[in-house]
Amino acid sequence: MHKHDSIYVGEGTHKMFEEFLKEAEKNYSNVFLLADTNTRQHCLPLLAGRFRLPSSMVILETEPGERSKNIETCSKLWYEMAMLGADRHSLLICLGGGVTCDLGGFVASAYQRGISFIYLPTSLLAQVDAAIGGKTGVNLKNLKNYVGLFSPPDAIFIFTEFLKSLPEAELLSGYAEVVKHALLSNEKTFRQLIKKFPDAASISEVNDWSLVVQRSVKIKNNVVSKDPFERGLRKVLNLGHTVGHAFESHALKNNPQSLHHGFAVAMGLVVELHLSVQKCGFPEKLAGEITSYILSVFPFYSFATDEIPEIAALMGFDKKNKSGNIRITLLRQPGDLITDEACSPESIENALAAYLKLGSGKRNI
Amino acid sequence: MHKHDSIYVGEGTHKMFEEFLKEAEKNYSNVFLLADTNTRQHCLPLLAGRFRLPSSMVILETEPGERSKNIETCSKLWYEMAMLGADRHSLLICLGGGVTCDLGGFVASAYQRGISFIYLPTSLLAQVDAAIGGKTGVNLKNLKNYVGLFSPPDAIFIFTEFLKSLPEAELLSGYAEVVKHALLSNEKTFRQLIKKFPDAASISEVNDWSLVVQRSVKIKNNVVSKDPFERGLRKVLNLGHTVGHAFESHALKNNPQSLHHGFAVAMGLVVELHLSVQKCGFPEKLAGEITSYILSVFPFYSFATDEIPEIAALMGFDKKNKSGNIRITLLRQPGDLITDEACSPESIENALAAYLKLGSGKRNI
Repeated sequence: MHKHDSIYVGEGTHKMFEEFLKEAEKNYSNVFLLADTNTRQHCLPLLAGRFRLPSSMVILETEPGERSKNIETCSKLWYEMAMLGADRHSLLICLGGGVTCDLGGFVASAYQRGISFIYLPTSLLAQVDAAIGGKTGVNLKNLKNYVGLFSPPDAIFIFTEFLKSLPEAELLSGYAEVVKHALLSNEKTFRQLIKKFPDAASISEVNDWSLVVQRSVKIKNNVVSKDPFERGLRKVLNLGHTVGHAFESHALKNNPQSLHHGFAVAMGLVVELHLSVQKCGFPEKLAGEITSYILSVFPFYSFATDEIPEIAALMGFDKKNKSGNIRITLLRQPGDLITDEACSPESIENALAAYLKLGSGKRNI
Repeated sequence: MHKHDSIYVGEGTHKMFEEFLKEAEKNYSNVFLLADTNTRQHCLPLLAGRFRLPSSMVILETEPGERSKNIETCSKLWYEMAMLGADRHSLLICLGGGVTCDLGGFVASAYQRGISFIYLPTSLLAQVDAAIGGKTGVNLKNLKNYVGLFSPPDAIFIFTEFLKSLPEAELLSGYAEVVKHALLSNEKTFRQLIKKFPDAASISEVNDWSLVVQRSVKIKNNVVSKDPFERGLRKVLNLGHTVGHAFESHALKNNPQSLHHGFAVAMGLVVELHLSVQKCGFPEKLAGEITSYILSVFPFYSFATDEIPEIAALMGFDKKNKSGNIRITLLRQPGDLITDEACSPESIENALAAYLKLGSGKRNI
């Protein structure tokens, strides 16, 4: 078991959660569990089968996916909790993926100026990324995470058994963050990863994720614990995300079926690797190798050449930018990052054009 | 000038705000000023006449009063700021009373996980109470402050000149918190206060509030700085408020013209003084003296005898209560408080009945 900042993962987590539950009925006046219709159906039975959940626990349910991640859902949940008599000594257990953790964390942090909350992340994306680092928030119309807080949960219990019920695409989406964390670490970590997961099939066939999750959590937590409020260092975690978020916004505008976050990040990594070669001297051969690997594992996000300026412009709304400049996290080499590298719209448009060329013959999203 | 925790009041405040503004254009990418239609009309010109405000400053305007203090107004402001390109390095100046400070503080604290904000409180209530202590929040339908955060502003600049444009009832409403703070201090402070303000007329005739405000701020800040998250000590500030909030909720349900917060608190103090005599041995003669003073200065909030159980029940929704018990802050004597004194519905109903009897012949609200 790796325990750091109340994050429990691997051996011993079961016992720690059992103890937490034993204390919960004494420590809290009300216990709520937030789930979406999917995690309620697939994950809650698994949890209820293994643990004695508080008999007075009330379940709060939301629709799954990004469409629930907004202020209207928060208002609905706040009002439900108020009507159920939730006071300041209540606990909210968030059982779900990134959306449930981000949303539930914000709901708990702002209900009566803050109640206790814990995360039981159920998706790979949430286990290695969304649940770690204390960021909570919801979307403001199509602006991602524009409303939220830095507010860490009281504890995070990671059960990798939940991943068995995860659809393949969801698993792959989370895997993009595992790849990103490897690139934040060093070349060796990346090489170990592609050895363990040579192709997409090998990812969906994994039986025990605990070691992979444990390592990825450690890399991310190492960064966020040094910079909880994203003043500097933490920006390294944006790798792949500036471009990735623009792809997501673009997809959201053009397609009711939105792009998986991880797929967008994976493609963002490809574009940002290209920029890293151009601007930061990242070794071209290694970039080619990583790019090939990413493109062999993840489906390709395609768009028309004349949409490039629009996608580049979408990066202007990224909230990490100061006064409208486009600043991106890039790599000198694996583990050696440059944050806030100022990129001109032209250099970004060129990188997007180069990316598009890589798509010929690939499986599109 | 009294400076503590970046609260500026009295002599020298003008100069400090001048310096703050000089730095603001360098320190922040965008400067927003939140005002309601009243403070925009009456207070902004005074501010603009005395200070060189940033030329790029954008004004955000809300309707005045409690009806704006909700999540819908927050969403509207968040979206306006996003569309105006507000990034994480923005500043929000809140120019207004308690509602503007509570609302603006929450809006700033949750916009992109938190931007800088300062308060320029314009009402007596905000200057001595609402702006001090780091509580932000909005109402959830008719549930007061159910959504919010403990999040102190970067600075508070108190200009008592704003009070000259304040309607008499608003001034009197704020004065209730001044009385409360005197009772939190000691009998001497209370006696000084009634000497300075023997009647309602003397309150509206004050020319320079700075000393009174300074003293009241000091008493409140002394409490909140020792207990920023309201874990214990800070509950002394609830004096008058458990009953006061119930009166406000009752008024809100029955009358479109809602009860002034301070008037509700003043009447709450009367009821809680009665309970303090009954349960905590507060000297009966002194309680009578304080009650007479309050009733001579503030208008009386009246209701029918058969509404008493309903009002008592409204206290059950107070968020300071653990598991539905009604716990109230009471006084042993001025400056000596008991927090979380458990009161039965019967004792509260008796106190409300005793209170109603005091109303005969009084000027009703």
